[in-house]
Amino acid sequence: MRRLLIIGIGAGDPDHMTVQAIDALNSADVVLVPEKEGKDGLAALRHDICRRFMTRTDWRTVAYKVPKRAAPDLSYRQVVDDWHEAIGDIWGRLLSEDVKDGETAAYLVWGDPSIYDSTLRIVERLAAKGDVAFDYEVIPGITSIQALAARHRIALNTIGGPIHVTTGRRLGQEGPGTADSIVVMLDGELAFTTVDADEFDIYWGANLGTESEVAIAGRLSEKSSEITEARAKARDKAGWVMDTYLLRRKDNGAKE
Amino acid sequence: MRRLLIIGIGAGDPDHMTVQAIDALNSADVVLVPEKEGKDGLAALRHDICRRFMTRTDWRTVAYKVPKRAAPDLSYRQVVDDWHEAIGDIWGRLLSEDVKDGETAAYLVWGDPSIYDSTLRIVERLAAKGDVAFDYEVIPGITSIQALAARHRIALNTIGGPIHVTTGRRLGQEGPGTADSIVVMLDGELAFTTVDADEFDIYWGANLGTESEVAIAGRLSEKSSEITEARAKARDKAGWVMDTYLLRRKDNGAKE
Ligand SMILES: C[S@@+](CC[C@H](N)C(=O)[O-])C[C@H]1O[C@@H](n2cnc3c(N)ncnc32)[C@H](O)[C@@H]1O
Ligand SMILES: C[S@@+](CC[C@H](N)C(=O)[O-])C[C@H]1O[C@@H](n2cnc3c(N)ncnc32)[C@H](O)[C@@H]1O
Repeated sequence: MRRLLIIGIGAGDPDHMTVQAIDALNSADVVLVPEKEGKDGLAALRHDICRRFMTRTDWRTVAYKVPKRAAPDLSYRQVVDDWHEAIGDIWGRLLSEDVKDGETAAYLVWGDPSIYDSTLRIVERLAAKGDVAFDYEVIPGITSIQALAARHRIALNTIGGPIHVTTGRRLGQEGPGTADSIVVMLDGELAFTTVDADEFDIYWGANLGTESEVAIAGRLSEKSSEITEARAKARDKAGWVMDTYLLRRKDNGAKE
Repeated sequence: MRRLLIIGIGAGDPDHMTVQAIDALNSADVVLVPEKEGKDGLAALRHDICRRFMTRTDWRTVAYKVPKRAAPDLSYRQVVDDWHEAIGDIWGRLLSEDVKDGETAAYLVWGDPSIYDSTLRIVERLAAKGDVAFDYEVIPGITSIQALAARHRIALNTIGGPIHVTTGRRLGQEGPGTADSIVVMLDGELAFTTVDADEFDIYWGANLGTESEVAIAGRLSEKSSEITEARAKARDKAGWVMDTYLLRRKDNGAKE
């Protein structure tokens, strides 16, 4: 039996690593290293983390090329499914050829594996296929949502209120609805510019926990263009940008 | 100037502590220790964490009694506000009397400070009052939501879909709406029994990361009473129970 550990490594700062994640890393004989084209914050973080926290000396890496996702000609769902299948096939091969029976492999996931990350879907599918027998475990990590809230020293919810977590794509398509507290991730298109700027405050952060971290908060109507500029600058500085934000509906005194 | 560190310590398992949280703890001269009536998982966890991770020897604790929250005769909001004010007053006194100028105090928060926790509201209010000058910082922690997802090895979102995080109280009052993925916290009333059991799968966990941890997943229609029993048992075992769950709308094939 092989073992696979899916380890959340936090959202950019190696100090986000938990004791559990460090122990899990050190129980791995093999670390799976995906290689993508282009500059990638994750590759650097992954590397830093192994160098800093791996204390055993008898471990090895196994690299693989991440297949490209097709353009969504078919349905979006179909394209994503095919892509997961392709990655799963590679993992299946790595697990049976590069990891010995009785060994443990680790895969490091940015932030936490439960938030907008496909790893667990890929692994579940691979396990269901049954071509290679393995057991797997998930180690939680600090998400970019927690990093954002800590940076701004805020609660995500209003008192007893709900939190809606969504993508930039959906916010752009569906609007903010009636939610008070909206966390937006995966926003490549500045979707905050599509909501009524007089209705919301924004708590925004890009590349949190890294050298190019930038955070801005205030009335959306006043901060929108400052954020757009800061986002472009962070990308210039790091070569990549990932941003997350909370939209908080302004208290109009009408509640409770 | 005094410094206050609000440290997320994870949701029950001391191994959830991050490197950042361990460092923050060790930069504290004083740890603030709230004392509540009754058995309390947090008190034990807090104690374990200080014992295990505090490596400096010249630190001290400052205990205080947590005032009781009034019954909500007035508006819920008013009661909560008054309670925060009362706790803030105590903290203000502790900070000026028990923490010296130039010293650092730490306060340990269950899970992450940004999720259904009043600490940051209390501190913000206290800072705004200006009676005692202090600076504060927030260290993120693993939330019970992340612990739940890791335990069940699931993503919280469907592909590209939103996540709605809410309380048991609200779920009971407002129902599940049209959301696909609903995370429910602070549920003292088994609010999952109020939704249409044929519509949802449930991924449930109580006292995650502790010795009395229990986790159950499956069709809500089949697991509802099993969960109710397991919840009561966990409470018997630990003397307290905290549970979190994901309701996932069943895929009816109608989407995309
Ligand atoms: C594919 S998702 C992965 C999320 C990750 N699993 C987590 O727990 O944060 C990538 C998105 O996460 C957010 N993100 C990740 N790291 C970030 C960081 N350091 N600063 C700001 N946002 C970040 C951005 O919204 C980005 O578009
Ligand atoms: C006052 S809130 C605090 C949440 C905390 N700040 C966090 O990040 O998880 C308490 C609620 O958190 C959830 N919770 C906290 N610890 C838990 C655990 N170990 N297992 C399951 N649920 C937990 C439960 O829903 C509980 O009612």
